[in-house]
Amino acid sequence: MAEHACKGIDLNSDTGERYSFQKALGEEKLFQNITSANIACGFHAGDPVQMARTVRLCREYNVQVGAHPGLPDPLGFGRRNMEISPEELEYYLLYQLGSLHHIARSLGVPVKHVKLHGALYNAVTKDEALSREVIRIVNKVDRDMILVAPFGSVMHRVALDLGSRVAVEAFADRAYDRTGALVPRKVEGSVITDPGRVVERVLGIVRGEVTTIEGLILRIQADTICLHSDTTGALSLIENIRRALANENIPVVSMDQLV
Amino acid sequence: MAEHACKGIDLNSDTGERYSFQKALGEEKLFQNITSANIACGFHAGDPVQMARTVRLCREYNVQVGAHPGLPDPLGFGRRNMEISPEELEYYLLYQLGSLHHIARSLGVPVKHVKLHGALYNAVTKDEALSREVIRIVNKVDRDMILVAPFGSVMHRVALDLGSRVAVEAFADRAYDRTGALVPRKVEGSVITDPGRVVERVLGIVRGEVTTIEGLILRIQADTICLHSDTTGALSLIENIRRALANENIPVVSMDQLV
Amino acid sequence: MAEHACKGIDLNSDTGERYSFQKALGEEKLFQNITSANIACGFHAGDPVQMARTVRLCREYNVQVGAHPGLPDPLGFGRRNMEISPEELEYYLLYQLGSLHHIARSLGVPVKHVKLHGALYNAVTKDEALSREVIRIVNKVDRDMILVAPFGSVMHRVALDLGSRVAVEAFADRAYDRTGALVPRKVEGSVITDPGRVVERVLGIVRGEVTTIEGLILRIQADTICLHSDTTGALSLIENIRRALANENIPVVSMDQLV
Amino acid sequence: MAEHACKGIDLNSDTGERYSFQKALGEEKLFQNITSANIACGFHAGDPVQMARTVRLCREYNVQVGAHPGLPDPLGFGRRNMEISPEELEYYLLYQLGSLHHIARSLGVPVKHVKLHGALYNAVTKDEALSREVIRIVNKVDRDMILVAPFGSVMHRVALDLGSRVAVEAFADRAYDRTGALVPRKVEGSVITDPGRVVERVLGIVRGEVTTIEGLILRIQADTICLHSDTTGALSLIENIRRALANENIPVVSMDQLV
Repeated sequence: MAEHACKGIDLNSDTGERYSFQKALGEEKLFQNITSANIACGFHAGDPVQMARTVRLCREYNVQVGAHPGLPDPLGFGRRNMEISPEELEYYLLYQLGSLHHIARSLGVPVKHVKLHGALYNAVTKDEALSREVIRIVNKVDRDMILVAPFGSVMHRVALDLGSRVAVEAFADRAYDRTGALVPRKVEGSVITDPGRVVERVLGIVRGEVTTIEGLILRIQADTICLHSDTTGALSLIENIRRALANENIPVVSMDQLV
Repeated sequence: MAEHACKGIDLNSDTGERYSFQKALGEEKLFQNITSANIACGFHAGDPVQMARTVRLCREYNVQVGAHPGLPDPLGFGRRNMEISPEELEYYLLYQLGSLHHIARSLGVPVKHVKLHGALYNAVTKDEALSREVIRIVNKVDRDMILVAPFGSVMHRVALDLGSRVAVEAFADRAYDRTGALVPRKVEGSVITDPGRVVERVLGIVRGEVTTIEGLILRIQADTICLHSDTTGALSLIENIRRALANENIPVVSMDQLV
Repeated sequence: MAEHACKGIDLNSDTGERYSFQKALGEEKLFQNITSANIACGFHAGDPVQMARTVRLCREYNVQVGAHPGLPDPLGFGRRNMEISPEELEYYLLYQLGSLHHIARSLGVPVKHVKLHGALYNAVTKDEALSREVIRIVNKVDRDMILVAPFGSVMHRVALDLGSRVAVEAFADRAYDRTGALVPRKVEGSVITDPGRVVERVLGIVRGEVTTIEGLILRIQADTICLHSDTTGALSLIENIRRALANENIPVVSMDQLV
Repeated sequence: MAEHACKGIDLNSDTGERYSFQKALGEEKLFQNITSANIACGFHAGDPVQMARTVRLCREYNVQVGAHPGLPDPLGFGRRNMEISPEELEYYLLYQLGSLHHIARSLGVPVKHVKLHGALYNAVTKDEALSREVIRIVNKVDRDMILVAPFGSVMHRVALDLGSRVAVEAFADRAYDRTGALVPRKVEGSVITDPGRVVERVLGIVRGEVTTIEGLILRIQADTICLHSDTTGALSLIENIRRALANENIPVVSMDQLV
């Protein structure tokens, strides 16, 4: 596969998004196959015990630990837009980053990346002031912290401008349009459910290309691909993706080895 | 006042125990007079913005910042006993300590002490296993962290045994019995409301003596005295206490200079 | 005072907006002077015990009980805009109305009105679809329930159109502009702090006139005036208002006697 | 099956114990097979939208709606003992019952029973004062409300004494000891996982007999059997139970037809 000289790809998943008393099926299988985990920090989901257990899974399966902070909206899973002030944004993020930091440190594991959740993640796609704020806040805590930014997002551009460490994320099971934006979930065809096509799209993304919903070929660049673990068949799909990447000799490595 | 050669006393107060949108009267006056602040971390009370604002007040008035972690019981203000597991205790504490750590660090202020809140504070008065756990957890995070332990508590003894840094706390407005235990609030005479007597008791505690509810003289040792700020007259009482201590040439210094 | 033939005015206040363990000063004085209480239902503030205690105060002082439902945003006190779906709106309201209904019924007191809180209250000022939804939901529960609508609001107009029972609310300590809209809090002069002027404005509102921030005389109609109880001097201001209304022989009665 | 002249059995399940954004697999299958649903009311789990959706499922599949109130402990799923006062108990229950009442009424469905959740459910097994309180509170709201009480519990006896409507509940997948008490989960053999044995035990319970963990035959009486839906195989087990009951001509009817 010398022609695309791929330095490798990270596979990340949002994790710890339940309470500790709720069981998840197949967690071992998930952690055997991903290289980075974004851990919910108790605002949109998760709790301290769940965070610790997820960090332990990361440690056991050699998965990179990252924070997955969200809005304080458990009923809406952090997906609903809320008008918060810059002061609220700052301390909501620091609070969540700090809580995971201490839990992970007590388990001997560093927190290496931050991926915003839900409405916050969507907001930095387009909002430059918010992107700058988030980058400033994260850098305050740790200059080496990797920010996960959506492909084609304002946050990606701003992070590059500011010289921040950033990992670009792509979705293999979501359609992009010709502008590089994710097609909203409510649009027909926005979610790709056929496992074969998802695997193909992963390989395409790694090569730097994705077919848009209009049928065009879009140049894409991604350091990490987001995998969902909460749907039926998701876990076997992840195994298929790993197999396909292995077949193509594409290294699957955590994002801190890529950016 | 050479006869009691007092090395000084710390005055602490529980703070940040509201939401950020709720106003408190007289905060400036409070922070001008105390030397240590125990900041609620969002479980029994408080929120990230309130934590940051309280840290800023500490910075402005040169007050030592400490964590005031509690049980996840906002409706009961962390005062109700809850049966939690050792795993829950550990990560509830680390979560709260971490959240304050990052917020305080972002404001350039170190977190120097931990004082448990409510039902947790009461529990370590008598529970040796719990005391050991708490000390182990706090030391894991920072070996220099000062633990605030009630006078006469099991936790105080255990901390000394383990060589942990500990500050002993006394209450000037609460009655002690002959065993050194606080008289429960529901008992008549358990709360001292007369300001003159409270000031007197502060001076007594500094000298190492307190009169019990039975009228006996009890030897007491305290590094820090807890002052309440939420009742009418509390703020002017604090000023009176400061004046009385100044008159006696007793240094009022933060606990990290004492233990 | 025959010239304005005032049928009377209701004085309402937002209440129960703390947790039950938090003390409020002067509650008795407040309940002696108001005729309707809007009780927070645990979403933006309040808890079940606090709700019951507030209903008991209403019963003791013969104050009309109303629900004061808000958004599920305790950190933001229900003041922040949140994007919620019609389904969420419907069941958030029914949940809160039901919770107060059972608590009040167990104490032998009917719930007679609903006043939305914070961001929801502001939204119905302008949003017709939302206003229709709220009216439909409230009527589903009880056709006799009185809706409190801001003067000049879309909700007021819609409620009249639909034949719903509605009480119009005015603010004596907030400036109106020439269009009848409240001047936003951040604008200089939007909040009237001089007690004398507030009393004057109450009398003006009862007479049907208010001076706008531009100095014009605006015709106003109000069944109820909102009084705040959380600021210094608020309670003595309420007493002054009662005295002034008594001097003018204006009956102060609960809104269910007016609409 | 004339010999035991069984008047029928109700099959109940705890439902709505997630947030509305969380998907559950197999809900239709569950609701096709149970006759009573206990709906979480937002304290230990659930939210207003989830409550409404669950009521709608009940309406669609003709399942009796009941309330499933719990302690305000979402992190502990209401399973942890919390020391609450009688006043807190009363208004926590009324709050939750009222919230479900209004949501169900808006959907045209009556709430016919109450089953306590978690630590509260366990407490009424033995605590007579608490049982009296709960019965008094529920009767205050609705004299016809059916209380679900564990077989062999103090609450069952107290409800009979007070002439309250009560449905006795048994567990087919949990071991009983010779005193009629449930064997604690941590004891080996306390949970019966073999589907064949669970079906057998259901038939035994309907006939009035259960084999204890010591191997004795215990007389048991039950109006309703609790079925779990959250484990692998639970749904097909429920279908097997329905089939076995049908084979024995045992009517499966909602508890309001039995008590």
